[in-house]
Amino acid sequence: MNAQDHVIMTYLIECEGDPLAYATKIASDQSTGTFVDLPGETPELKARVAARVLEVREISPIARASIPQTAGGGPYRRAEADIAFPMEAIGDDLAALMTITVGGVFSIRGFTGIRVLRMQLPYGFGAAYPGPQFGINGTRQLTGVENRPIIGTIIKPALGLRPQETAEMVKELIASGVDFIKDDEKLCGPPYSSLEDRVAAIMPLIKDHEQRTGKKVMYAFNISHVDPDVMMRNHDVVATAGGNAAVININSIGQGSFLFLRKRSRLALHAHRNGWDILTRHPGLGMNFSVYQQYWRLLGVDQFQINGIGSKYWEPDDSFIQSFHDLALPLQAEKQSPMPVVCSGQWGGQAPETYRRTGRTLDLLYLCGGGVVSHPGGPGAGVKAVRQAWEAAQEGIELDVYARSHPELKQALEKFGRPS
Amino acid sequence: MNAQDHVIMTYLIECEGDPLAYATKIASDQSTGTFVDLPGETPELKARVAARVLEVREISPIARASIPQTAGGGPYRRAEADIAFPMEAIGDDLAALMTITVGGVFSIRGFTGIRVLRMQLPYGFGAAYPGPQFGINGTRQLTGVENRPIIGTIIKPALGLRPQETAEMVKELIASGVDFIKDDEKLCGPPYSSLEDRVAAIMPLIKDHEQRTGKKVMYAFNISHVDPDVMMRNHDVVATAGGNAAVININSIGQGSFLFLRKRSRLALHAHRNGWDILTRHPGLGMNFSVYQQYWRLLGVDQFQINGIGSKYWEPDDSFIQSFHDLALPLQAEKQSPMPVVCSGQWGGQAPETYRRTGRTLDLLYLCGGGVVSHPGGPGAGVKAVRQAWEAAQEGIELDVYARSHPELKQALEKFGRPS
Repeated sequence: MNAQDHVIMTYLIECEGDPLAYATKIASDQSTGTFVDLPGETPELKARVAARVLEVREISPIARASIPQTAGGGPYRRAEADIAFPMEAIGDDLAALMTITVGGVFSIRGFTGIRVLRMQLPYGFGAAYPGPQFGINGTRQLTGVENRPIIGTIIKPALGLRPQETAEMVKELIASGVDFIKDDEKLCGPPYSSLEDRVAAIMPLIKDHEQRTGKKVMYAFNISHVDPDVMMRNHDVVATAGGNAAVININSIGQGSFLFLRKRSRLALHAHRNGWDILTRHPGLGMNFSVYQQYWRLLGVDQFQINGIGSKYWEPDDSFIQSFHDLALPLQAEKQSPMPVVCSGQWGGQAPETYRRTGRTLDLLYLCGGGVVSHPGGPGAGVKAVRQAWEAAQEGIELDVYARSHPELKQALEKFGRPS
Repeated sequence: MNAQDHVIMTYLIECEGDPLAYATKIASDQSTGTFVDLPGETPELKARVAARVLEVREISPIARASIPQTAGGGPYRRAEADIAFPMEAIGDDLAALMTITVGGVFSIRGFTGIRVLRMQLPYGFGAAYPGPQFGINGTRQLTGVENRPIIGTIIKPALGLRPQETAEMVKELIASGVDFIKDDEKLCGPPYSSLEDRVAAIMPLIKDHEQRTGKKVMYAFNISHVDPDVMMRNHDVVATAGGNAAVININSIGQGSFLFLRKRSRLALHAHRNGWDILTRHPGLGMNFSVYQQYWRLLGVDQFQINGIGSKYWEPDDSFIQSFHDLALPLQAEKQSPMPVVCSGQWGGQAPETYRRTGRTLDLLYLCGGGVVSHPGGPGAGVKAVRQAWEAAQEGIELDVYARSHPELKQALEKFGRPS
């Protein structure tokens, strides 16, 4: 087998019985076989397109099945299985890749658990896809921020503000010195706040500030819509008004629609991955972020939300750190890197650990919603506190110590506490 | 609260602690709240857009957490929670509906299980979406089949056949008297069998048969591609050549891209839902088919694959039967019904139970891959056997008895056995 002609998938198989038999079944069902022998399944045909099991490494069994309702008594054997799928059967289509290496695998009978752990694409795969248009470098250029994280915030409350009320808040946030502002992912263009009205209310403030100070705050308008035609019109509304970024609920619109937008886009595309948790929250089921993100990076996500240290969500810190490193790994096709967006319950207190555990990089967008907006001194003080926290992290000074001479950070520490 | 202005979602919540507290958290997180109090979250604003818990019905606790790795000792309390989301916050966008009522819910910390059980949309919602173009009636008209199930088959082996080899098989299948033939979902247009070449090899056979006999076999070419521009070109290749159907891997391309196609389509769109199992296989996680299918029916699926009795996959029969009934329930907007496609390991032996448990309807596409192709007498005998099995089901005659005077059914019973 030539590794250049195959995608190698690694699955976590959990079952009653022999994991090798299940790996063999994946390879058969997901290429040339079905539930009975077939007259046309010749050796010549299989040599060209059949998937093959490369290795099955059994790991410790577990006492309880990941899907207990369909299982017997246990314990359940587990293994990591490497399976090679010929690119000859897939071509260069990401939808074919998904259907063959992921989709049908989850329908196979008898698993008590099944998870896609890794995907190793052959070199050159994905050259046909655009990748990020802006990514880290483009986001830095558009915001003019160098040598520190880009500091962002989110309009809160997420829902309910009318365009003029949002604009009032934007005015205050612009004055706070923040680099980036975004609509909440849930604000998609409801009747009380159409995208057109929101853009008309907000963009003059962004442009006026730019005229006066030279600093252009990046505002990511949520242009998500299930209809790609509508989404493209939304894109044009933002771009025509001088905007340079957009929030996309990538799972709610789907991969095809995202690619449709990316091919025509002039905006930095900020991906919110809500719904991703369904794929990944149970460690014995679904898919690792390392696999998922390869699709979206090829399709062209510029800024990728991946939670953060001490997030308000279920995701453990280790999982976030892994995601951060996943985004920095090169793809098999030459693409620039997306900007990691560190978010969820962030307020600055997590800066030192984030800095330490991500390899002391400053290439990130650090996004604080309530952590900025609810600072006791207001958003301006909130942004200052976050910047101070990052200064302390860079200089290796304890936050408590740095807070003695930085009152905004001190207030933030008092209000939000420190993550345990 | 006016039910006409809200979508009412029902969640299965599983947790340590109080399910009501988690239901309240869903309502808050997924509308106006975040992890800290917000200055702008006023009573007036909440009255307009905040989600509200209507009822929490506690059910029996379970001993083992659906996501055991993040849980303490148990038992775990469970409840069904009804939550109303104001349409004022959603508008008419399915992507907004998904993000607000599904996406973010799965990120909330502390659940040991969370599943979306039901979605009750307000009357009239979805009028903006096309729904099926062909559905049951259109599929019957295009195939000319009345008063019995439409009998379909799948080209096997799924992968590896070159266009001329596929055409040879199609010729044999057309001669068998089958009503419907489809590409396998995994065959998306690989280098050895481009769609153009496949259409050029197959459509003349379909048209020639139609000229000679008046019967137009429906051939569903797999036109799936992650790029909707490519998919539309694929659509045009099929439609221009006189084809009338297409296979779409709906989860691999995503909702937006499917809608893009549907708005421009002249073909009956046959949905393969591979990957759906990730959403639904674990009963404590994910989403019921009843919720999922409402999206796809509004977007316009014409023919919907939903497995069958004694399927080769993991799905239990009861789940298939529920899916069948789900597809027949009216939506809140006036749309015709999609044709249910009963499939996976089918060969005719399941006809009596299928007929009995689906309410004695004949409005279905009964799809047999290996069950037709691997019949000992060849595909022609395979199709005959399937039709005989459905005749027996309709007339209430045991298959064994009917097989005495129907040799093809007898052979099928001997080869494939009867489902237990």
